[in-house]
Amino acid sequence: MKKKIKKINAAILIIGNEILSGRTQDLNVAFISNWLNDKCGILVKEVRVIPDVSKTIKTHVLELSKNFHYVFTTGGIGPTHDDITAKSISDAFKVKYEFHNEAYEILKKYYGLKKFNDGRKKMAKMPRGSKLIYNPSSAAPGFKIRNIFCLPGVPLILKSMISNCSKFLIKGNKTKSKSLNLITVESRIAKELGIIQKKYKKDVDIGSYPFFRLGKIGVSIVLRAANEKKLNECMLKIKRMINKKEIKTFKN
Amino acid sequence: MKKKIKKINAAILIIGNEILSGRTQDLNVAFISNWLNDKCGILVKEVRVIPDVSKTIKTHVLELSKNFHYVFTTGGIGPTHDDITAKSISDAFKVKYEFHNEAYEILKKYYGLKKFNDGRKKMAKMPRGSKLIYNPSSAAPGFKIRNIFCLPGVPLILKSMISNCSKFLIKGNKTKSKSLNLITVESRIAKELGIIQKKYKKDVDIGSYPFFRLGKIGVSIVLRAANEKKLNECMLKIKRMINKKEIKTFKN
Repeated sequence: MKKKIKKINAAILIIGNEILSGRTQDLNVAFISNWLNDKCGILVKEVRVIPDVSKTIKTHVLELSKNFHYVFTTGGIGPTHDDITAKSISDAFKVKYEFHNEAYEILKKYYGLKKFNDGRKKMAKMPRGSKLIYNPSSAAPGFKIRNIFCLPGVPLILKSMISNCSKFLIKGNKTKSKSLNLITVESRIAKELGIIQKKYKKDVDIGSYPFFRLGKIGVSIVLRAANEKKLNECMLKIKRMINKKEIKTFKN
Repeated sequence: MKKKIKKINAAILIIGNEILSGRTQDLNVAFISNWLNDKCGILVKEVRVIPDVSKTIKTHVLELSKNFHYVFTTGGIGPTHDDITAKSISDAFKVKYEFHNEAYEILKKYYGLKKFNDGRKKMAKMPRGSKLIYNPSSAAPGFKIRNIFCLPGVPLILKSMISNCSKFLIKGNKTKSKSLNLITVESRIAKELGIIQKKYKKDVDIGSYPFFRLGKIGVSIVLRAANEKKLNECMLKIKRMINKKEIKTFKN
């Protein structure tokens, strides 16, 4: 009997002027995407980066929430005026933006009653019905509401929290990948690769990426598939093709 | 008389499974965004990353083309089967996907008639009416059609081409920025910063970004504005506030 492949997808929504302006290099997309695939068998199918503007956040959250199984947002859940993710998502889903009791207690304990000022209290406000995503590095929790997971923008803190999303996620089949680095140019293998991709179009994604490394020009061929047998079969076909063309592989 | 601020915006569309999967770290967003602001006074207002799927490319190109003054795509203009940007954009705008005479001549000359195979020829096919964006590093040109600029995904090649987009762009007012690194935490200054932001909401964007550096916790305050006078005024207000609170600045 054929094993059924369970496909679960996600989108990432990066909220932050600092990424859009180019001032800050985003590192969260690659991290979240790798974590989702490796640990949960979930494939990221779309990423958006948007400014800290409430109306824009609302529109994109609703659109992505409808189109994907899960949405991961980063940024905008701190104490300052430009942290408007929680309020905007409350508005988007038309639920109350209010103190989450447990989050409030966590933060009160962390800062101590005397230093628990308004900015710090704000980090305990979330859409009604949110579940907490605990934060082992700086206390302020993220939250999950419907299929949306709200995480902070600082990569170090995000990394420390991501495993706490796991219990809320339905897992899919992990996409496996194999790659091959060749000393060649894409246009030398484009035709043959296209024929092999056509044969495996249902089961394997073949990507072809030129690179420059140690003064050499090369091409990385990356195969991705949920079905390992098909993945290996397809790789064998590609290896035969490159042997026939006497193309060398690149040793790192 | 008040000087009119000319606001011109753009979106970036990253086309490529390798970025979505987290295998490859995107570097093009920060580069394009900085270049557009510094050289052309154009602000990037949205970024999307999508897979190499023709229908998806069409949908997003049409949406972004309608919503922004300019759209910059990266990826998918090479010789292999997964390079479908030019064909997909032709379909989106319902124009013919055909050989561009000048691009064909450039590539024929570069490879020589004998080595000018089908994969290489494919790189001369674009939507009818495209203007070329010349490529000084590897010959294969990008192209501009309507308000869409199609560039390759390899950062080194993209960087060598970007200045050739300049002549097609209407320039806006450059957004200037100033920043201040403080040895503090966001929640100590959140309230005061919010009041200053409210006062300057029309003219200055104030961003607040926590960081960890050399074992210290800090906050970067970043001001962005097209009007330099307002920018300086606002920065002065912030400096007064932090002096009053006896917060130290961070010396790199």
